[in-house]
Amino acid sequence: MQATQALAGFLADLQYAHIPGHVLERTEELFLDWLGSALASQGAHPIPLFERYAERMGPTQGSARVLTSGRSSSPYFAALVNGAASHLVEQDDLHNSSVLHPATVVFSAVLAAAQDLGKSGQELLLASVAGYEAGIRIGEFLGRSHYRIFHTTATVGTLAAAVGVGKLLGFDKEQFINLLGSAGTQAAGLWEFLRDAADSKQLHTAKAAADGLLAAYLTADGLTGACNILEGDQGLAAGMSSDADPARLNDRLGTRWALAETSFKFHASCRHTHPAADALLQLMQREGLTHEQIATVVTRVHQGAIDVLGRVVTPTTVHQAKFSMGTVLGLIAVYGSAQLIEFRDLALSDPQVASFRDKVQMQLDPEVDAAYPARWLGRVEVTCTDGRRFSASIDEPKGDPGNTLSRPELEAKFQRLLAYSGARSPAQGQALIEQVWQLRDARSLTALH
Amino acid sequence: MQATQALAGFLADLQYAHIPGHVLERTEELFLDWLGSALASQGAHPIPLFERYAERMGPTQGSARVLTSGRSSSPYFAALVNGAASHLVEQDDLHNSSVLHPATVVFSAVLAAAQDLGKSGQELLLASVAGYEAGIRIGEFLGRSHYRIFHTTATVGTLAAAVGVGKLLGFDKEQFINLLGSAGTQAAGLWEFLRDAADSKQLHTAKAAADGLLAAYLTADGLTGACNILEGDQGLAAGMSSDADPARLNDRLGTRWALAETSFKFHASCRHTHPAADALLQLMQREGLTHEQIATVVTRVHQGAIDVLGRVVTPTTVHQAKFSMGTVLGLIAVYGSAQLIEFRDLALSDPQVASFRDKVQMQLDPEVDAAYPARWLGRVEVTCTDGRRFSASIDEPKGDPGNTLSRPELEAKFQRLLAYSGARSPAQGQALIEQVWQLRDARSLTALH
Repeated sequence: MQATQALAGFLADLQYAHIPGHVLERTEELFLDWLGSALASQGAHPIPLFERYAERMGPTQGSARVLTSGRSSSPYFAALVNGAASHLVEQDDLHNSSVLHPATVVFSAVLAAAQDLGKSGQELLLASVAGYEAGIRIGEFLGRSHYRIFHTTATVGTLAAAVGVGKLLGFDKEQFINLLGSAGTQAAGLWEFLRDAADSKQLHTAKAAADGLLAAYLTADGLTGACNILEGDQGLAAGMSSDADPARLNDRLGTRWALAETSFKFHASCRHTHPAADALLQLMQREGLTHEQIATVVTRVHQGAIDVLGRVVTPTTVHQAKFSMGTVLGLIAVYGSAQLIEFRDLALSDPQVASFRDKVQMQLDPEVDAAYPARWLGRVEVTCTDGRRFSASIDEPKGDPGNTLSRPELEAKFQRLLAYSGARSPAQGQALIEQVWQLRDARSLTALH
Repeated sequence: MQATQALAGFLADLQYAHIPGHVLERTEELFLDWLGSALASQGAHPIPLFERYAERMGPTQGSARVLTSGRSSSPYFAALVNGAASHLVEQDDLHNSSVLHPATVVFSAVLAAAQDLGKSGQELLLASVAGYEAGIRIGEFLGRSHYRIFHTTATVGTLAAAVGVGKLLGFDKEQFINLLGSAGTQAAGLWEFLRDAADSKQLHTAKAAADGLLAAYLTADGLTGACNILEGDQGLAAGMSSDADPARLNDRLGTRWALAETSFKFHASCRHTHPAADALLQLMQREGLTHEQIATVVTRVHQGAIDVLGRVVTPTTVHQAKFSMGTVLGLIAVYGSAQLIEFRDLALSDPQVASFRDKVQMQLDPEVDAAYPARWLGRVEVTCTDGRRFSASIDEPKGDPGNTLSRPELEAKFQRLLAYSGARSPAQGQALIEQVWQLRDARSLTALH
């Protein structure tokens, strides 16, 4: 359990002053992206079910804020509803090599607890960095065998959320050890729901954020947990992984900032479609092609893309359309954009998009597959109706750390997310943007919603 | 998923009139036993931590009752605290072949929801039977490989609690399928905490009861879940078992009443010590022996007993003493009783008990091991200081269905549990006993606490 001990020691010792400026800036950017993702799902099924549950089971007023409803509640229920809301439109961030979506679990728990505990913006940023650094390493530790059956954002998310709240509560090393025990023994979430397009993804992120917060508050009061929940004989890896690698748990603590490796999502589709979408857009702009001039598109992909996207032939729901490579490339080819509004208004009904969909094929590419999941490579080959052939490749999809979104691009994405649900006006959105860019100076977070 | 479908259909169709009288009587008895187990832990760590969490995160008043504090709350928090409380003193029931403690999860969730929903005693009994029948079969389905790493009462407990509340809510077959999906994807709980004697056992039963209730209330409102969470390729068995047997899921539904197979705990020690304790008591009474006359005791046991009890040589805490075969047999030999009060007052400090402890050895017995876990056989061999040798065997420990506790014995146990914590006076205890024996006629359960 040396690796766990090292991780817990790092989390206890981490101070705001240790964190490089660019990591703090990125944390603010990830926070804005998360806030927009949560507000974008206002009113959409199943979020009102979680709001209603919070109203039925929680207090009528509280110290934390449910973003979608605007009501206050206790931090447990704020974390629950905000956790459900911020993963619904699938526009929240992703860390590639851990296959973890950190924002939806970490920020949902940390903001609720920070509001409850009267913490400052700096304390929120510090706690969030702790949650990201721990969660990403635990996800990498559990490996690909875990992700095959378990939804890592749910399981590892419970630990990541717990660590963030534990940092707000000022935990020492021993408390972090107990906290990992109490959070890890609650880790749950199975991929089985995907087959039925059931609502469990929202349940998973809701529960991960809320259960992590619960573990932290109980630990602060003295609840003890297993000392070796990650590596022990009857612990998380023993039960839920066959390729766990303890060395990942304390990988370059304090020098590698895993948070800064996190990707923003640009297109509003399944991440597996993004490399091809970027490559096709680049190719069409470079060659000056229109969608009518294209006869066929072959995208060369990793196996995971075929596993996830291969089932969808003709999408019948907007959600399925986001998992249809042909539809995504169709929106890109015809409209140059595959955002939430294009999906809602055009993906299923537009005949040009449907026509382009039938031109697209996926093929397994050994080089692309070997690079995955550390790198998500995009390769497309286009044949034109006049017989010309072109190809294009991108090595980092838009939103990845080496090809990140600028602050203006993030602001525009944020406003698109708000406009999608109508949760806030553009002026209100602008005020939120300014609050987030000044997070480091905020003495209180109670007005942030 | 045929077996899951059959189980869900049975749960939807089950009516009070279908349940044999002796099963309803046993349900009342199990309920009384659960109520005593919860009240016995009033004031004991870590229960006040859960009470405080409920007060911090929940409403100040609500429709359900926290038994240990006497306060009202929402049913979510009543289920949470009562789930934590009713497993702490380890006097709650056990179903042998599923290795599930059903009461602590089923009754904690069902009573809280029944109080919230204004249900009657008959409705509570029907819902509880549904929870037991489903939970026991799911535990048997997941098998021994699951129990090796996962705490079945935590994982399966979430499903059992959910089913009980779903039955109160009048679910049809499709709702039960969705409910199993939403409960099963929350199933969690690892044995790792045992190594450190950490508080996770209470967290497990608390969360199983509360999460099961959450799944049911959200399902009632329309949350969907995976259709095949138990048997699917990315479901519970795929992730958390290597010897799952789907035939157990629908084993003799409607003719086998698994609830009636549930055992009461008589001695206040680890269940693995009970067969030997009963056999020794029988032998000493039969031969008229006193503890001073005994030189050595060999107990012939199953491997699981050695695995769990073998680590404790000289216990240093009361909890460890309950896992010390020598201490348990010492209390039996010296005082004829190994109840909570003897453990608290005598197990560690009494020199006669300590002296007897050193006379006791465990030996693996192939016949006993082969019968486990369907049957828990007790075999003891005693050598006296004068050289005489005796042996005794029991085939069903006291509390098992073929050697069950009578209602007077259950009432006495209940009063002992109340006296242990001082939670209720004997007169209050008597009033509760009368309420429970009249559960079938109760129109409301709000006064039951």
